[in-house]
Amino acid sequence: MLRLHDYAGSGNCYKVRLLLAQLDRPYERVPVDIFGGDTLTDDFARLNPARETPVLETDEGPPLPQSNAILVHLAERTDFLPGDPAERAQVLRWLFFEQAEVIPGIAGLRFRLITGRLEPDSRAVKSRRAMGGAALGVLNGHLGEREFLAAERYSVADIGLYAYVHVAHEAGYDLADYPAVQRWIGRVEGTRRHMNDLEPYRPNAWPGAGRSIYG
Amino acid sequence: MLRLHDYAGSGNCYKVRLLLAQLDRPYERVPVDIFGGDTLTDDFARLNPARETPVLETDEGPPLPQSNAILVHLAERTDFLPGDPAERAQVLRWLFFEQAEVIPGIAGLRFRLITGRLEPDSRAVKSRRAMGGAALGVLNGHLGEREFLAAERYSVADIGLYAYVHVAHEAGYDLADYPAVQRWIGRVEGTRRHMNDLEPYRPNAWPGAGRSIYG
Repeated sequence: MLRLHDYAGSGNCYKVRLLLAQLDRPYERVPVDIFGGDTLTDDFARLNPARETPVLETDEGPPLPQSNAILVHLAERTDFLPGDPAERAQVLRWLFFEQAEVIPGIAGLRFRLITGRLEPDSRAVKSRRAMGGAALGVLNGHLGEREFLAAERYSVADIGLYAYVHVAHEAGYDLADYPAVQRWIGRVEGTRRHMNDLEPYRPNAWPGAGRSIYG
Repeated sequence: MLRLHDYAGSGNCYKVRLLLAQLDRPYERVPVDIFGGDTLTDDFARLNPARETPVLETDEGPPLPQSNAILVHLAERTDFLPGDPAERAQVLRWLFFEQAEVIPGIAGLRFRLITGRLEPDSRAVKSRRAMGGAALGVLNGHLGEREFLAAERYSVADIGLYAYVHVAHEAGYDLADYPAVQRWIGRVEGTRRHMNDLEPYRPNAWPGAGRSIYG
């Protein structure tokens, strides 16, 4: 049985829940309150010494942290990950792009603005905003010429990128500036069932959330 | 024939050259001068719209950016990537950890300090220093109990992490504070041939390098 250590407000956790729902795979969900200190215990350090969610426990190997590693592992031998080596490489390429370019910009900005950790006009916000905007520009150009990110099909690359990109407005971006991204979000949401069964990940419970200037 | 678009001063490029050397795979190296504007051309945007090195061209698929996606692709069906699904997942876990936790901290700090883009006592340096230190702490704990990062063998996980971790002193870290990491660096450097054939990646040519306070 799969066991997912999961924080409801995290986009990295959301992407794993989304794939599990689309795979129709049952799992035990272990809620982790990251603001309540749940990741600071010795037990949690044994699951993930980096003290982050999500972590997947399986019957086969050691606990598996890192959302995109979990996506690839769960997707092996399913329609969500191509078997062709060159196509698999492109799926991984976009998943690494997500961690390197989308997380520091869009996800980092969204978290800090919603929780009031950064002032909207600070230098740090401007730097993250530029990084996230560049990532959205790259995605917009790439998706202007194809339906999905890699291998001409819906894959874990799309799930991995969708998680934070579809809430980019909460980091102050106007997705109307990235029309190809907006159309791709519609395709991701339209082509697969179960999207509406998922608990949405809204950071209403994040400490300081009331101070946000973004909706 | 493989063709690697490569910037000599980049750790992300270095890791690909290291794997190619250890695999004994011939390739054409295309030097890219990132400070000279080589990544700003339309031709380069077709290779990688994110305008970053490395990019690998192969005979099979589209150009492949993202250093860790390149490592995994080249390592398929070799000793550098296990076939067991749970072991492969752990290799990917550490490669994603590298992009998420090591690059923004150690690599980002090293680049900005060497090129004089950040003052050593600025708030941005302190934030990156803490992030890189946390990553080194995680690695030190993990490597205190095992010889290599994943699957009880030397793999692309070790190559991916080695690239920036072995030059962490250039970002102001003292690796003596992380003795298990230091021993692992010795194992990485000791167990494989070709390490000495590689062009070292020293950022002597980076603009502003003379202003660094770190050796």
